[in-house]
Amino acid sequence: MTGKELFKNLKKYLNTEVMLKGWIKNHRKQKEFGFISFSDGTYYTPIQVIYDKEANFDEIIKYHVGSAIEITGKVVESPKPGQEFELRAINIKLLGDCPEDYPIQPKKHTREFLREQAYLRPRTNLFQAVFRIRSKAAFAIHKYFQDRDYIYLQAPLITASDAEGAGEMFQVTTFDLNNVPKNKSKVDYTKDFFGRKAALTVSGQLQAETFALAYRKTYTFGPTFRAEESNTKNHASEFWMVEPEIAFCDLDEDMNIMEDMLKYVVKYILRNCNEELLFLDKFVEKGLIDKLKHLTKTKAIRITHEEAIKYLLDSGKEFEFKPPKDIKAFYMRLNDDNRTVAAVDLLVPGSGELMGGSQREERLDYLIKRMDELKMNKEELDWYINLRKYGGCIHSGFGMGFERLIMYLTGIENIRDVIPFPRTPGNCEF
Amino acid sequence: MTGKELFKNLKKYLNTEVMLKGWIKNHRKQKEFGFISFSDGTYYTPIQVIYDKEANFDEIIKYHVGSAIEITGKVVESPKPGQEFELRAINIKLLGDCPEDYPIQPKKHTREFLREQAYLRPRTNLFQAVFRIRSKAAFAIHKYFQDRDYIYLQAPLITASDAEGAGEMFQVTTFDLNNVPKNKSKVDYTKDFFGRKAALTVSGQLQAETFALAYRKTYTFGPTFRAEESNTKNHASEFWMVEPEIAFCDLDEDMNIMEDMLKYVVKYILRNCNEELLFLDKFVEKGLIDKLKHLTKTKAIRITHEEAIKYLLDSGKEFEFKPPKDIKAFYMRLNDDNRTVAAVDLLVPGSGELMGGSQREERLDYLIKRMDELKMNKEELDWYINLRKYGGCIHSGFGMGFERLIMYLTGIENIRDVIPFPRTPGNCEF
Repeated sequence: MTGKELFKNLKKYLNTEVMLKGWIKNHRKQKEFGFISFSDGTYYTPIQVIYDKEANFDEIIKYHVGSAIEITGKVVESPKPGQEFELRAINIKLLGDCPEDYPIQPKKHTREFLREQAYLRPRTNLFQAVFRIRSKAAFAIHKYFQDRDYIYLQAPLITASDAEGAGEMFQVTTFDLNNVPKNKSKVDYTKDFFGRKAALTVSGQLQAETFALAYRKTYTFGPTFRAEESNTKNHASEFWMVEPEIAFCDLDEDMNIMEDMLKYVVKYILRNCNEELLFLDKFVEKGLIDKLKHLTKTKAIRITHEEAIKYLLDSGKEFEFKPPKDIKAFYMRLNDDNRTVAAVDLLVPGSGELMGGSQREERLDYLIKRMDELKMNKEELDWYINLRKYGGCIHSGFGMGFERLIMYLTGIENIRDVIPFPRTPGNCEF
Repeated sequence: MTGKELFKNLKKYLNTEVMLKGWIKNHRKQKEFGFISFSDGTYYTPIQVIYDKEANFDEIIKYHVGSAIEITGKVVESPKPGQEFELRAINIKLLGDCPEDYPIQPKKHTREFLREQAYLRPRTNLFQAVFRIRSKAAFAIHKYFQDRDYIYLQAPLITASDAEGAGEMFQVTTFDLNNVPKNKSKVDYTKDFFGRKAALTVSGQLQAETFALAYRKTYTFGPTFRAEESNTKNHASEFWMVEPEIAFCDLDEDMNIMEDMLKYVVKYILRNCNEELLFLDKFVEKGLIDKLKHLTKTKAIRITHEEAIKYLLDSGKEFEFKPPKDIKAFYMRLNDDNRTVAAVDLLVPGSGELMGGSQREERLDYLIKRMDELKMNKEELDWYINLRKYGGCIHSGFGMGFERLIMYLTGIENIRDVIPFPRTPGNCEF
């Protein structure tokens, strides 16, 4: 028996005796009776427990907030408006005590404090909501792609190629750093675990392309890493990315998929995390639910890069940074103007960029020319180049930072608060 | 329109004209007509295409195996027994050529050769099956836990603690290894990215316990790493683990969940990968389907460690290794005999150990005593210890190596052949 089971089958359990195990969230004591706000973590709304001298009152009254307990009680209709039921305790057993120095007391804690208590913060109302939404959103993404016959590719995390040149990478080694093997005063990577220099991946896209050309539709969903020294609200050193890749798909169809997937996930969360969203709407981002509902009903507007810049310049606002020249990754397909590439970003109000996609350069000669321009190591990526040689075709894909999505879905503004145990420069706790 | 859509809605499309994009798997040419075995990767069984002079015969006959093509044709009943339909080509357009040095010709290739062509091997019958089963099994695992209200935890990959002491770890650093900062001739890790020594995780279990004590039920599903120098069929340096963790759950209930989850996943694969299993049953492991069906219908036998050893000794077989003394991880709950721990392995015929689980030591004093015995750094794991202090309770969990499961489901005997791009000592290609 779980809290969720009780909430979802209330009619069945009303006026019956039930047994639940969970934790004391709050405890208000009076002389003749007391109230315990109780949760086992399976359902967002806590269960209100009332006890009096008919239960083991003298013991219960000593139980601290945070303790694990086993409640036997009767489910009865609640006299309180808006509360469907309450639990009249028959007996409450202490399973695990919690001393009064417990950091998570029923009061408002700053997010900074809770980051230091990251191992306990999923017990708070805020993080209980955030990490359940994170879990449900992850599943919604899998379900979206699986229902549409995409193959889930678990791309490799350790890689020997800095393919995207997407910034600083973490190096992976089994060397004793006190004593790095050298050859002519240079590191001798032939002696390292993989026989060559290895690092943590920044993207699974290139590998996803190999699957797209075998299964037509594929997606990755896994961790990626950036060793950037930037301490901002939007950057973490370790984060999860979703990277779909589709053969016989041009940029237009790619955009359709980006939009369709996002709406699917938002609808899934609206349907499955109602209690959590109500809390977040009230305490984190006013209007959150309306924002999400609005998205599901609105068609994304498609404008060119030039139009976007014009909008920004015409807005009359001052920008700290000038609209930057687009970064054209080597794999993006060159447009017929020989100047721009077939790339797209999906932006949402408030959060900005949620996804970035492109049609990939499927023409062998164009790809090689571009790699030469960028002085890339073609030998290292011969397999990627060969995809254009062996039955290559038009294909496109996109990447979505999973944490960006969770920030959008929850209204949380700092990436550290949507990752259970975040890694950032100088921080690798828990 | 995809191949799968056609197969699944054959009645609807019979005697109509369809358009499909995909690749030539095989091409047999005769004087007046030809046969193309065609697949777009969305459905396992290839589509048989027949063309003659009524189509663009003179062009088609030049198309190579591996090429990407667009077929316009009519779906007609097949005269061949066992084949539901075939496609009469009206026009076949070449989208992407494939020269004759294409490594994946329609003949038998060794698995060793295909490992060197890992970026192309999902196009072969064998790997097309294996990686689709891998994808479906991953989803089945998510679905099993999500349907039962488990919260999906994405445990951190970079960690500062060698928690389990489970073997060699990969170090993660941003140091220039040609010039490692030192302090008194020792590596100065305070200058590294995280301000301390960091490594790739070997397990998300300890973090999962923090979620179990907040949500009651949780699971991880993510990559883990081992820097072992062993080059065996069962070891990879990077692999995926599923680690559920459940509060108020003892070892007996843990075993129930292990068994129930496994059966669920096997049934899911039997239901969703019929064509793939038929192929694997025929060419990889005779009796595979019966083995899987049998598992879903059989209750796992539960025997003690001592009984297991007795069986082995009584079997009359010679063992290369003596049954080893169990490794008792520090977190396993000490039994009342003060000698054994509450741990379990789930073994299946053929594959051996698929999962390992235990009830965790929830008693603060026992845990500390055990950590002291093992001379573990308690300060580093204070958060883990504190879980026993703040509302701790009985809890259990288990770990399943995802690749082990895929090997069991497919009959594949080498772990390198169930991972799209495997990493092993000396190997970090693609």
